[in-house]
Amino acid sequence: MQSENSVEDSLHIRKLEVTDKEKGFIELLRQLTVCDSVSDEKFKERFEEIAKYGDDHCICVIEDVRSGKIVATGSVFIEKKFVRNCGKAGHIEDVVVDSSARGMQLGKRIVEYLADHAHSMGCYKVILDCTEENRPFYEKCGFKKKEIQMVKYFV
Amino acid sequence: MQSENSVEDSLHIRKLEVTDKEKGFIELLRQLTVCDSVSDEKFKERFEEIAKYGDDHCICVIEDVRSGKIVATGSVFIEKKFVRNCGKAGHIEDVVVDSSARGMQLGKRIVEYLADHAHSMGCYKVILDCTEENRPFYEKCGFKKKEIQMVKYFV
Repeated sequence: MQSENSVEDSLHIRKLEVTDKEKGFIELLRQLTVCDSVSDEKFKERFEEIAKYGDDHCICVIEDVRSGKIVATGSVFIEKKFVRNCGKAGHIEDVVVDSSARGMQLGKRIVEYLADHAHSMGCYKVILDCTEENRPFYEKCGFKKKEIQMVKYFV
Repeated sequence: MQSENSVEDSLHIRKLEVTDKEKGFIELLRQLTVCDSVSDEKFKERFEEIAKYGDDHCICVIEDVRSGKIVATGSVFIEKKFVRNCGKAGHIEDVVVDSSARGMQLGKRIVEYLADHAHSMGCYKVILDCTEENRPFYEKCGFKKKEIQMVKYFV
């Protein structure tokens, strides 16, 4: 049997790569919200559109190198503002951990990675929207409730 | 005396221009949050950084052409996602109406302009964060409460 340490050692956090589509990235996102099959071409196109933003849009993943599967992901993009003396704000989106990999603090690793990225980019804050149910998790990550989220759907 | 119509006619909605700094744009933002004096150089630099995103980051303003002052503003940026079949989400930020220009539905015009922009860019939704106090205003603009906003400050 593998020790706890060797399991942890096999979970590598890094930025999304274009080959991650073959490693279950889309199937993982499907645990979060609607995400039909995406063609290789469409995936590559979107990957490249996001890559153009450089460090202003960072998607991170955790790969389990034993299985070669992506087991967690999240993204952050950097919004350039005029307020706060031309400040920047980080927006965390689309955080999800594979149902088979919960209880290993992978969500916390993802959120900390993204918050550190926003901090290193000079953001004065990082924000995200979540359900009331997920509030305790984000509080453990150092976040506090501030406002409410409003949404308007077009489809 | 001017009629109601002529007042409305003098309020022009359009995209932010680099010359709007001289028209009170920064002073307007100061009614929203911390925004110290910004040098002309810093303003131009930030303006150009945002302009590079093209239609993916749109800042709109309402100018009162009688006074040559910017009396309302708001921004929206388009986030490119993998979820929702490589969908896009619009994020509305930094909406403010000058204290002297309230009661003329300028906030509604700004929010509708930004939501229309997001829609025309192919977004499946547009979101924003606001206080519970501002919820009725955004409901009038067609938004519904969904989640809660969490924040982590670095400064």
